[in-house]
Amino acid sequence: MKNMTETTHQGVLAQIKRGAHELLLEDELKQRLASGRPLRVKAGFDPTAPDLHLGHTVLLNKMRQLQDLGHHALFLIGDFTGMIGDPTGKNTTRPPLSREQVLENAQSYRDQVFKVLDPEKTEIVFNSTWMDKFSAVDLIKLAATHTVAQMLERDDFGKRYRSNQPIAIHEFIYPLVQGYDSVALRADIELGGTDQKFNLLMGRELQKHYGQPAQCVLTMPLLEGLDGVNKMSKSLGNYVGITDTPQDMFGKLMSISDTLMWRYLELLSFRSMGEIAGWREEVAQGRNPRDIKVLLAQEIVARFHTQRAAVDALAEFEARFRQGVLPDDMPEIAVAGTGGQIGIAQLLKLAGLVASNSEALRMIDQGGVKLDGEKVSDKALQLKAGAVVVAQVGKRKFARITVQ
Amino acid sequence: MKNMTETTHQGVLAQIKRGAHELLLEDELKQRLASGRPLRVKAGFDPTAPDLHLGHTVLLNKMRQLQDLGHHALFLIGDFTGMIGDPTGKNTTRPPLSREQVLENAQSYRDQVFKVLDPEKTEIVFNSTWMDKFSAVDLIKLAATHTVAQMLERDDFGKRYRSNQPIAIHEFIYPLVQGYDSVALRADIELGGTDQKFNLLMGRELQKHYGQPAQCVLTMPLLEGLDGVNKMSKSLGNYVGITDTPQDMFGKLMSISDTLMWRYLELLSFRSMGEIAGWREEVAQGRNPRDIKVLLAQEIVARFHTQRAAVDALAEFEARFRQGVLPDDMPEIAVAGTGGQIGIAQLLKLAGLVASNSEALRMIDQGGVKLDGEKVSDKALQLKAGAVVVAQVGKRKFARITVQ
Repeated sequence: MKNMTETTHQGVLAQIKRGAHELLLEDELKQRLASGRPLRVKAGFDPTAPDLHLGHTVLLNKMRQLQDLGHHALFLIGDFTGMIGDPTGKNTTRPPLSREQVLENAQSYRDQVFKVLDPEKTEIVFNSTWMDKFSAVDLIKLAATHTVAQMLERDDFGKRYRSNQPIAIHEFIYPLVQGYDSVALRADIELGGTDQKFNLLMGRELQKHYGQPAQCVLTMPLLEGLDGVNKMSKSLGNYVGITDTPQDMFGKLMSISDTLMWRYLELLSFRSMGEIAGWREEVAQGRNPRDIKVLLAQEIVARFHTQRAAVDALAEFEARFRQGVLPDDMPEIAVAGTGGQIGIAQLLKLAGLVASNSEALRMIDQGGVKLDGEKVSDKALQLKAGAVVVAQVGKRKFARITVQ
Repeated sequence: MKNMTETTHQGVLAQIKRGAHELLLEDELKQRLASGRPLRVKAGFDPTAPDLHLGHTVLLNKMRQLQDLGHHALFLIGDFTGMIGDPTGKNTTRPPLSREQVLENAQSYRDQVFKVLDPEKTEIVFNSTWMDKFSAVDLIKLAATHTVAQMLERDDFGKRYRSNQPIAIHEFIYPLVQGYDSVALRADIELGGTDQKFNLLMGRELQKHYGQPAQCVLTMPLLEGLDGVNKMSKSLGNYVGITDTPQDMFGKLMSISDTLMWRYLELLSFRSMGEIAGWREEVAQGRNPRDIKVLLAQEIVARFHTQRAAVDALAEFEARFRQGVLPDDMPEIAVAGTGGQIGIAQLLKLAGLVASNSEALRMIDQGGVKLDGEKVSDKALQLKAGAVVVAQVGKRKFARITVQ
């Protein structure tokens, strides 16, 4: 019996570590898990208008996984600093948010994140709740817990200091506020991106300072975008938004490379690693990876839309490419745009699908060019850097093209 | 008529600059003086129990001078940070003050400083009045006005940072609070020691930031102690406390060197620089500087005690040295103590007043040794480093000795 329990604990720990970059400290987490009580799982989010893509859901998936293991998610909206805005007044792109805007954005978060999180086990909290009660004296005492040198050891601050870029003094206070949130929430574990490690550890430090057991820290990697190179980001254009239409979502996911597919399965799919390992085996033995990509794309579409939408999206996708016509061994090509974009004719030429710009324009006129299965009629069409498309010229020429 | 006014303005400015180390910016001060309205003169003081010596009165004298010119003194007690104490908890010598202690200390300040300041033109203010109303948000906005690099440019912070001594982050906030006090008080000019220049300029900066005209800054030198070398300080023992008895005060002032006497006249006397220049002339022409020292000592005793006490102190002093016996050309000797002190026999020997320790002890037994005119009977007497005494052995051997 004891062995079974240990096996279960090991299994739970393996699940928690799935896809994670780092877990600190594993032994402490084991002890907390062994206690059997629901852990308080903290993750912090920006109070600005959320417009989530699959990159953001890596963290949400991990929270969901912990919820499924019986734990309690604390979805923290950092509205205290958001309502201050940029106090130096230099960053005009960060105007102070009103309380109404914060609440509106929180509602928008709810609409989006409950596609992933279990609402029953999620508490949405605002750090203004405790920080608005903070006096100047409280803040001075908080600031006294760390030294200037400790802050400058941080990579981003250190680099800015050494390169003579100004760091306003309040910027040293913000990580402390973020860390204090863990104290206020009595967090057992905090999740964040790898770029947040310093802030998550600050939570540990401050909990110790305020006489609490120090939270564990679980960092998740930043998800690569559709290009498989840069991190997924709206400004790079290489993203799948969670409010994308089923068709877009499906098409974009079908466009990723086979390598990236395994990465996405690990970080975005709720299927067990055992099942995924089985597929790997099958692909190694000759199964078409496209089949697996379809399963991934359907799972994601079903999550953010419906099961029915996922079925329809597949049917539509296959119809667009005239069922069976889409070749299994499409060449993957990266083309370089100019000034962040590229014209359709140039794209087809650089991808080797046409011999010249004029041939490209002629083929468009004749209705012989498709992008992601849809006929192109606009000869002035521009594609943005980061875009990944399956281009087709005539009946037999295909390529999966990434714009760089 | 215009010339007369200009002459007056020049005279006023010369008075204000008397003994000062630096005035920033002279032109701005001229303009404010020309406005004719009473200026708001700020000076900040520690909220801990005051035990003032003449060194502290250099600043108070300057405030008094400005009061006599019609201006309004803001005697600021920095109790806000005093009531926080040392938030790192490392400095156990700085326990947080209670409000009762602050008020008690303020009363003690009143008892002492109104020997110099004009109570009618003095407002005692506490920065907790506005800082207690400061929220965490207000403090963050204040912190955002300056950069980490600007703070580290400050000599003391820079040195500590480079030598890896910890600087807690709240220490960067304290100069900002001190500067904000100028905003809250709408100060026209702030006085401080030369070591306070950075903080006084912070007041200028913050007033500009908060849309006020920037205060002028007047720094006063740190007064040398009785030894004429180190700054006057209680821990060095080279001080005249303003609660010293008339006899002690008089004796200590009579012990200073002729050079130091002129410095003390500039910084401690209320006599005009014209009168002092006249004395200099007389001394150059042969007048005994001891006469001038008596006038200085009497002025100071009269200020902190009474005119009568000053007269008595002189009489007593002269009686002690048997009127006329004290030579005009006493040798001035510095002797080095060990571990911060020196025994009486060793002192007399090093000063060349006796040939050996045993002669010193014999002379004490015979009642032939006096310090500051008082017979010494304790052969184990120890003198502390910083002490300045007039020692007499027998009838004719004298020396003014500084213990180092």
